[in-house]
Amino acid sequence: MAQRVSTSFLQRGEEHKRICVYDCRVENGKATQKFLESSGLDFNDFLKHLHKEFKIGSHETFVVATTDRTVLDFNKFEELQDGSTLYLLQHKNQALSVATEEQINYLPHYDTLIRSGMYEYYASEGQNSLPYALAELIDNALSATAKNTGVRTIEIRMMFDESLGKPAVIVLDNGCGMTSKQLNNWAVYRLSKFSRENSKFASQQEGYIRPDPVPRSLNSDISYFGVGGKQAAFYIGDSARMMSKPVNSPDVHELILSKDEFEKKEKNNEDIYSGRIKNRKPGDSKHIKNDDEHFLHALIAEESRKESFTAVVIMGVQPEHVTFLKKDFEVWVRQLAHIYHYYIHGVNGNDTRKNSRNSNQTKINIQITLREKPPKCPRVMDLRDVDNDMETLYINSAADTFEFKALTAQDGGTVEGVVRYHPFLYDRETYPKDPCAEQASPDADDDDDCANESGVQHQARGKKAIFDCFWNGRLIPYTTVSEFDWCTDKKSKLPAECYNRISGVLFTDDKFQVSTNKLTFMDLELKLKNKDTIFTRIVNGQKQRGHLQKEFTKWLENCHKKLDKQIQFKGYMETITRTEL
Amino acid sequence: MAQRVSTSFLQRGEEHKRICVYDCRVENGKATQKFLESSGLDFNDFLKHLHKEFKIGSHETFVVATTDRTVLDFNKFEELQDGSTLYLLQHKNQALSVATEEQINYLPHYDTLIRSGMYEYYASEGQNSLPYALAELIDNALSATAKNTGVRTIEIRMMFDESLGKPAVIVLDNGCGMTSKQLNNWAVYRLSKFSRENSKFASQQEGYIRPDPVPRSLNSDISYFGVGGKQAAFYIGDSARMMSKPVNSPDVHELILSKDEFEKKEKNNEDIYSGRIKNRKPGDSKHIKNDDEHFLHALIAEESRKESFTAVVIMGVQPEHVTFLKKDFEVWVRQLAHIYHYYIHGVNGNDTRKNSRNSNQTKINIQITLREKPPKCPRVMDLRDVDNDMETLYINSAADTFEFKALTAQDGGTVEGVVRYHPFLYDRETYPKDPCAEQASPDADDDDDCANESGVQHQARGKKAIFDCFWNGRLIPYTTVSEFDWCTDKKSKLPAECYNRISGVLFTDDKFQVSTNKLTFMDLELKLKNKDTIFTRIVNGQKQRGHLQKEFTKWLENCHKKLDKQIQFKGYMETITRTEL
Ligand SMILES: Nc1ncnc2c1ncn2[C@@H]1O[C@H](COP(=O)(O)OP(=O)(O)OP(=O)(O)O)[C@@H](O)[C@H]1O
Ligand SMILES: Nc1ncnc2c1ncn2[C@@H]1O[C@H](COP(=O)(O)OP(=O)(O)OP(=O)(O)O)[C@@H](O)[C@H]1O
Ligand SMILES: [Mg+2]
Ligand SMILES: [Mg+2]
Repeated sequence: MAQRVSTSFLQRGEEHKRICVYDCRVENGKATQKFLESSGLDFNDFLKHLHKEFKIGSHETFVVATTDRTVLDFNKFEELQDGSTLYLLQHKNQALSVATEEQINYLPHYDTLIRSGMYEYYASEGQNSLPYALAELIDNALSATAKNTGVRTIEIRMMFDESLGKPAVIVLDNGCGMTSKQLNNWAVYRLSKFSRENSKFASQQEGYIRPDPVPRSLNSDISYFGVGGKQAAFYIGDSARMMSKPVNSPDVHELILSKDEFEKKEKNNEDIYSGRIKNRKPGDSKHIKNDDEHFLHALIAEESRKESFTAVVIMGVQPEHVTFLKKDFEVWVRQLAHIYHYYIHGVNGNDTRKNSRNSNQTKINIQITLREKPPKCPRVMDLRDVDNDMETLYINSAADTFEFKALTAQDGGTVEGVVRYHPFLYDRETYPKDPCAEQASPDADDDDDCANESGVQHQARGKKAIFDCFWNGRLIPYTTVSEFDWCTDKKSKLPAECYNRISGVLFTDDKFQVSTNKLTFMDLELKLKNKDTIFTRIVNGQKQRGHLQKEFTKWLENCHKKLDKQIQFKGYMETITRTEL
Repeated sequence: MAQRVSTSFLQRGEEHKRICVYDCRVENGKATQKFLESSGLDFNDFLKHLHKEFKIGSHETFVVATTDRTVLDFNKFEELQDGSTLYLLQHKNQALSVATEEQINYLPHYDTLIRSGMYEYYASEGQNSLPYALAELIDNALSATAKNTGVRTIEIRMMFDESLGKPAVIVLDNGCGMTSKQLNNWAVYRLSKFSRENSKFASQQEGYIRPDPVPRSLNSDISYFGVGGKQAAFYIGDSARMMSKPVNSPDVHELILSKDEFEKKEKNNEDIYSGRIKNRKPGDSKHIKNDDEHFLHALIAEESRKESFTAVVIMGVQPEHVTFLKKDFEVWVRQLAHIYHYYIHGVNGNDTRKNSRNSNQTKINIQITLREKPPKCPRVMDLRDVDNDMETLYINSAADTFEFKALTAQDGGTVEGVVRYHPFLYDRETYPKDPCAEQASPDADDDDDCANESGVQHQARGKKAIFDCFWNGRLIPYTTVSEFDWCTDKKSKLPAECYNRISGVLFTDDKFQVSTNKLTFMDLELKLKNKDTIFTRIVNGQKQRGHLQKEFTKWLENCHKKLDKQIQFKGYMETITRTEL
């Protein structure tokens, strides 16, 4: 987007007041329009000016009113802003014989930036929404490190040691960094990669290139709208300090957006969306003078040993966020581990039984630190070490898997899918339970209601949807797909409880759209359930010809016969415990 | 918000190019900063200028680079924009001994307005999202007509008669209208009623006054974020023409926002958020010259007989929307009737059996017209005449109701709630089915799965949540509350199927927050399930002292005994059909 430096920046201090006046006294015919310079004039001076300009007779009665028909007086005239439009009328309610036009501005309010996140990240079913804001910052770091040749490191540091400053959330990555032009672009709300100019010179522009398809769509290309970073920062706190050094540049670029600054600019009638990027040597923290930000000295000192990086420092963190982040450390770390499961562990996920080998992709380290005032120990967790996120639980309790692909007809969107079987063992289902869901809402285990009366069939998955859904490899937490035609127990000869022992996961590319908050898909289920969408079974990476539903039923039957330690034959009321297995 | 008329508007035509240059050659000490006027200069002239200004020795080697360290040459210099910052360096990668600052602008991209809605209104579970965009426009019309003394009329006109112009969606109301200042505010993204100046004069400002509590929170105050109208318009089409006449004003104010205009302004490097309001006589359509908009003449002709009004005319309607609006007329009209059920029918809803009297509130007429090219007949529907929206079905199949109130501890948010009993009659449940849900996804009736094996208990509500949720009287479609502790069958002695014969509705005030798209609550369930939230039974408008769960169980038991035509005693396997009832 063309970023015009407003001319007001170049002419600070000069106070204009130019008024546009329409002479509407004539009942028919065109109203004369004149621009009158009225800086320094009071209402009486202005009236004299009008008399002369519009040749008003000395005994003529007239009124001067705004376009909202408010008649001007001495005080109101003082309040008039530069560029206002006024009418010269015979009387207040005289009709306009000819239309007039007035110039207006409608710059988006700065709440666009600072309050956007407040109504974006919502909590659903006992889930706290804060991790989804943090995820936006991790998304950005993933994109930025996508082309790293070495290790990709993303750090989230919760700085809650009051002796070092006020609470701060820091997200750091060793990615490509931003040039000052890119940092400028970062601040532009809704400027997406699709419409961005990334160099100061047209001759050096690079357009957006869609990455090639990769398994599970783990392409690290998780930017889309040009809003995530800003929304997240202002959801978490009330200011964001960006510090970034692009590769091959000797300089660090630094930009602060803050609620206070916006409010001050508004109050002083300054350009709301105008600011300053500081360019400085890596390690140079001379500009940090405030004790509240003391920890920044250490952070900036780290810069010198980095080739390139981006650091997002969020301050003015909401107290309830600080409380949650401290108290529920395990909960939100686990939630992040779920969101980025496949980025952290690779295409096959965290198979601790090493049943599968993950491809040799560049490792992504996402490290979380929470630092409080000593003697409290800092808490440190690598997301890769989380072993109780839902994906890990699913993968490790699965005894067999069924893979498939879906291709949408209209736009060629592709979805990879996996269904897993969690068998019944001796006296219990192995379908994993979400430890947090139950904690958050103790009465949520009504999955068992039905089981109480009708046997085991609903104990496993219960009312839960089968499929979790990932977009470009990143979990979209509030969209689940309950089932497909071919994996439901309608008209099946298999016992219903088998259909309740499956979990699943869908991986879509970005032909499928997500909402700006990345919490939901726009129309995934509609598109997939469209009858022109083609599903195919995948075995060892190869497409299979067979009829999907038949293939699936066969697979499930097999799972049931080979893996379940208890088989209930449909129609019979007898239960056989197979001690031989 | 202070709306500064950018000075560039007053100085059209003058081309500035002022460059800020930092002399960074000195390794230590402060870099000198100078502003150089360089309009009209080529790179060589500029270099000469530099030599003089910074006293560069004639044999000295130096480079001139941007803050992104791009070394300037003849062509790049031509591309430099007004207000750019440059470095004078010994060599390209010389470190900055002292930090520099550069002025930037980060005006939100116009996609903020025109693409916002695209990723806001999403479709969930077979629901089409278009009605939710239309709802935003109805919300605005409801707010605008809140203080009408006479009848409140809201019209949605789908103009799909090609002989009268291109497809257009018109939303018309006979509300208070907008002054030109208010129309200007309308266009300001994220300017909410809480931060709005509604007069051109500070001395005439009226702040926002929260309406007094009313039953079911039907206060018509359904604005909150300052985004709805714009998002909706650009979701539906690609331009919005607002025409509005406030009471007591002789003028109609008219403003057009359009995608084309934004793109043109961007291309021509003009102020993106600058525009013109046209002020004109009611009925004056001289400015409508385009045949595509021919229908506007008739619309404008209607103005003369209106005291005040607002008309939103959306053009460039997406073809798939036109298709949907024509093809699924009944579906979306029904959906709107659901959303505004209590505004249309009053606090007790659409009780066609006239069991209850609705309060004598001002009537709200919401009329939908869809006009195609004759001989096709126009379709006209008053939302009040819709008799198959879910609320109507629930209300009319309910045999008894149980009312309650909830009060949240922290912020005093209030929720009114109703539970209804849908009895079992002879051979069938009377719990209503959503006719559209099944149509949209033919395999969604798996509610019956469980029933197949374990009897009738799950046939009624199935997996559906009990409560639909209304915010300030307006349905928030994607948030449902599955149940509360006190209305589940855990540990109850009553048969489980009774708990499956209830539907319910919650009415919250705006102490509860909704997301900007008004599709979901932010944290309704969390707040209500907080243990400090107090629930009380309401009987005949009076709070009851008793323990809610006991009261509810008693009520439910009563319903079961008195209303169900078949009673299944728990523990017994025998079923008694009571022919005496
Ligand atoms: N850590 C980072 N390293 C490098 N560039 C970054 C980083 N964070 C943000 N950016 C740049 O700033 C831009 C804006 O970020 P932001 O998160 O606000 O929006 P987005 O990522 O483009 O889209 P989305 O709304 O999907 O997040 C990014 O597209 C990217 O170019
Ligand atoms: N039909 C109308 N009649 C009168 N004023 C209107 C009308 N439609 C919009 N407005 C004015 O324009 C403002 C902006 O409308 P918009 O729908 O964009 O945001 P909002 O209603 O303030 O908030 P929300 O995002 O919740 O819809 C409204 O607050 C109202 O003052
Ligand atoms: Mg992002
Ligand atoms: Mg609105």
